[in-house]
Amino acid sequence: MRRFVVVGHRAITSGDFKLDDLCGSAGRLDVLLRAINSSFFLSHDIRKDVELQLILLGEPEPPKTVRLVGSELKYLNPDERSTGALIRNALMKKAKGEERSSPGIYISNRSYKDVLSTIPKDTQFVYLKEDGKDIRDVKLSGDITFVLSDDQDLSAEEEEILMDYSPEKVSLGPISYHSDHCILVVNNEMDRRIR
Amino acid sequence: MRRFVVVGHRAITSGDFKLDDLCGSAGRLDVLLRAINSSFFLSHDIRKDVELQLILLGEPEPPKTVRLVGSELKYLNPDERSTGALIRNALMKKAKGEERSSPGIYISNRSYKDVLSTIPKDTQFVYLKEDGKDIRDVKLSGDITFVLSDDQDLSAEEEEILMDYSPEKVSLGPISYHSDHCILVVNNEMDRRIR
Repeated sequence: MRRFVVVGHRAITSGDFKLDDLCGSAGRLDVLLRAINSSFFLSHDIRKDVELQLILLGEPEPPKTVRLVGSELKYLNPDERSTGALIRNALMKKAKGEERSSPGIYISNRSYKDVLSTIPKDTQFVYLKEDGKDIRDVKLSGDITFVLSDDQDLSAEEEEILMDYSPEKVSLGPISYHSDHCILVVNNEMDRRIR
Repeated sequence: MRRFVVVGHRAITSGDFKLDDLCGSAGRLDVLLRAINSSFFLSHDIRKDVELQLILLGEPEPPKTVRLVGSELKYLNPDERSTGALIRNALMKKAKGEERSSPGIYISNRSYKDVLSTIPKDTQFVYLKEDGKDIRDVKLSGDITFVLSDDQDLSAEEEEILMDYSPEKVSLGPISYHSDHCILVVNNEMDRRIR
């Protein structure tokens, strides 16, 4: 299993937003929607071996976690607007435990710490960070979890929580990219390792 | 200069479309909008050494070409909707020769053949194609032009026109990706070569 965990520091935690304004009133939810696109889409397929967890920390009810499971996903299209509608539907649910919103999309009130604790212990944790070791020189396991942030860095506290999992710090090249672009570069590298 | 040429076979050639329906009535313009995002965005910057030409071949007035120049671009945001608005503004202009629509965005009625003929002869032409040589094993020049298609392959005729420029066929790995994802993988590879 290939997992991505993305922290959306200001991303809205209710379904009360307009699909016409995903960048503004939705707390840069657009960043997370693009992360969905780059996690799952292949030319004529959806990646079935990928799981993506989006951790939403914006108002009004943080935290919320949206978990997307590639092997179950349906109704996902590559554009931001229709993906935004799927996530809005999920955010409209009262999530106490984890609840299914649509095929392959689950919503819960798990925190970042909760999410990391639910990931199987035998996975390889990777922290995507500019000062890490070049991904091309790193051994990558088949069961692997990449943790990254939205357009803001992980906070000191979030970084400390991650350190409990002894992640390897990994970089993707000499230039710093958007989160969704990072996921794509990772997917390409993983595709090359596996086949 | 790093150039990308992307052919949008059904992309609408007038400004008469809704920003709420970029995938449907705009002839999969969404594919080209994502190509803009992946061509230009860095974490906190716009790539100034990139030029992107989008060739629109859909109704009602094909062909139209939108040329985006990284060193001049302003008002570009990463989301699909606002980028769609910039392209719609360009398509509302009567383009006989090439005309500037907004900073860094030009519109013309150039065809695919015209566009290739305007690119400096001393550039290295690369045709992104699944059966090509792995990009990691290919010598890449600083002045380079990557030609790719939208969600449909280049037609036999388009491929023949490209062959006049003796392009190198290059692939990006074992799996076939969306056009915007291809551009990202290319940008990462180029970033690694240059720095």
